[in-house]
Amino acid sequence: MRYYAKPLANLIGELSKLPGIGTRTAQRLAFHLLEGDYSDAKALADAIIDAKEKITYCSICSNLTETDPCYLCTDLTREKNTICVVESPRDVIAMEKTGEFKGQYHVLHGAISPMDGIGPDDIRIKELLSRVNDQILEVIIATDPNVEGEATAMYISRLLKPLGVKCTRLAAGLPVGGDLEYTDEVTLSKALEGRREI
Amino acid sequence: MRYYAKPLANLIGELSKLPGIGTRTAQRLAFHLLEGDYSDAKALADAIIDAKEKITYCSICSNLTETDPCYLCTDLTREKNTICVVESPRDVIAMEKTGEFKGQYHVLHGAISPMDGIGPDDIRIKELLSRVNDQILEVIIATDPNVEGEATAMYISRLLKPLGVKCTRLAAGLPVGGDLEYTDEVTLSKALEGRREI
Repeated sequence: MRYYAKPLANLIGELSKLPGIGTRTAQRLAFHLLEGDYSDAKALADAIIDAKEKITYCSICSNLTETDPCYLCTDLTREKNTICVVESPRDVIAMEKTGEFKGQYHVLHGAISPMDGIGPDDIRIKELLSRVNDQILEVIIATDPNVEGEATAMYISRLLKPLGVKCTRLAAGLPVGGDLEYTDEVTLSKALEGRREI
Repeated sequence: MRYYAKPLANLIGELSKLPGIGTRTAQRLAFHLLEGDYSDAKALADAIIDAKEKITYCSICSNLTETDPCYLCTDLTREKNTICVVESPRDVIAMEKTGEFKGQYHVLHGAISPMDGIGPDDIRIKELLSRVNDQILEVIIATDPNVEGEATAMYISRLLKPLGVKCTRLAAGLPVGGDLEYTDEVTLSKALEGRREI
């Protein structure tokens, strides 16, 4: 039984390919676009194509950027001797929002995950190694605090240590504003392990 | 502070205009589109434009359609003497999925809601009245079972009754598969009020 006109069915199909968008949400979005102004729908379609055509990977740090090298790599006020290694461009934004880090970034675009068939050669580790020279004093490995992120951090640190560069990892512990009572035991163990003198 | 390249910020902005899509979800969708294939992003952009250009309102029932009149209005196997009045094209799909209704539809594109400044002239009630003639035996008012839907149903029934046409309303009661214990009191009152002999 055919309920939708073909262009509508097609739009719902394309929308439901997006992550976290199920068929019901896709239907709601499609009807919203159809019932709204043509200019709004056009603006969205244009924004998709425009972003896709203009955004590339920075040839230095692999972050998403409109200009190559990106504005972070070309910023002369940033320290050149520290590299923060993250899994995704979203992590760069998260780090930048803290305002605490003023060095360089390196985006891996993933983490080592044998279960998903992602090995060291599938993420940008080679590119990281080629950036590490005598000028680099510290590499902060800020991959996610989960199994894949930890494995990736271990792998990278083993490659970097023979080069004599200091490798650090972000602290694991209680989230600020959290509740000790409701903290899971692994996080609490890590917090205890990483306790500091006050 | 500028965290995103302009085309990316623009895409996130356009995506977050969609209903139920907040800034965080918009960011996730934008990064997904940027990190995926060009062809996927193009397919989505094309689907939006294509649907927007090809889908119009049926000149008879006001449903969204690719052809005018729509496939429901031109279906000769459907009864001509019953009109089911719904608020939105999604409601037509919901009715069609039951497979129980074989008459005509009329889409109001909204409900009377003085709080939102939507009066009878802002939805397609005039178009409904112009369709009601001697051939029409029954108008089933299937607006939503909420304040706006009930008000709209009352308004329409008052206009139609002087024309001698039978007006009916979908039954309110317990949802099938539901739990009497957890049913809200208004629904339970309606179910009691509408009880039928078995």
